[in-house]
Amino acid sequence: MSIATMTASQAAAATHGSFTIERHFKAAPERVFAALSDKDAKARWFRGPAGWAETERSLDFRVDGIEITAGIFPDGKKTHFRARFEEIVPNRRLVYSYRMQIGDGWLISVSLATIELSPQEGGTRMIFTEHATFINGFDDPGAEGRKTGSIALLEQMAASLEQE
Amino acid sequence: MSIATMTASQAAAATHGSFTIERHFKAAPERVFAALSDKDAKARWFRGPAGWAETERSLDFRVDGIEITAGIFPDGKKTHFRARFEEIVPNRRLVYSYRMQIGDGWLISVSLATIELSPQEGGTRMIFTEHATFINGFDDPGAEGRKTGSIALLEQMAASLEQE
Repeated sequence: MSIATMTASQAAAATHGSFTIERHFKAAPERVFAALSDKDAKARWFRGPAGWAETERSLDFRVDGIEITAGIFPDGKKTHFRARFEEIVPNRRLVYSYRMQIGDGWLISVSLATIELSPQEGGTRMIFTEHATFINGFDDPGAEGRKTGSIALLEQMAASLEQE
Repeated sequence: MSIATMTASQAAAATHGSFTIERHFKAAPERVFAALSDKDAKARWFRGPAGWAETERSLDFRVDGIEITAGIFPDGKKTHFRARFEEIVPNRRLVYSYRMQIGDGWLISVSLATIELSPQEGGTRMIFTEHATFINGFDDPGAEGRKTGSIALLEQMAASLEQE
């Protein structure tokens, strides 16, 4: 592909954003870790809001293993999350990289996420840190949208843990 | 592994650092891109300083392909770089994640790197951005050490391009 044949979206400059979320879960680190690493436990909370329908899900929990969660919104908008586990320290830390596509294969971001767990009175303290690179014409200034979405997902995770 | 059986290094908190390097190369984007994507061209500059001996090198240039560059210093210190290509836009952009190990398998960091190229008078402008997460007790405040190392590598790359 020559520079002349790139699409405008491929030629767009990349942008970057990082954020950290800290929150408490009313469950021991072992249970919080299971909600991140067990396919069925993760499927209970790592999903779109009401109306979003899952189209693909897999989770191969090992270093270099792949996790895919894809779905479609009622308006036809598709989402495709594909992660690779970079480091696993059971009950303590998870590092993964992931690519996000929306629509028909529009790759909008590549991220590096780190989840750290530690025992805290009555449960677990989580520190979630994400570094995101937005590409191909997609932008999310300061990764604010990604942060808001992540907070909502962790809220779903907390609710799922309290229902178990 | 229970929390009680983690090593002190595994239990250490992760730290984060990001940096951007901008520089000019006296070569067209196509040649700069080849120095990033061709195994032999990359081997000419992506290596340790004098005295460092290569012990392993591979480069499978495709999305999800793996690149490994490992070596050993005269004092016996080992380095092991393992990257995966996340996005490839020929002559324009390269996004990859990578893990860095030193010594006998001490995983010290996971990174997300983005290299952007654009034509600039007399050659190519590169913007290199890295987001690094340091783990297992290793630290590099502000990623200053990583940035210094990256600047040195890009200097070797520029020298290699001018010798071709």
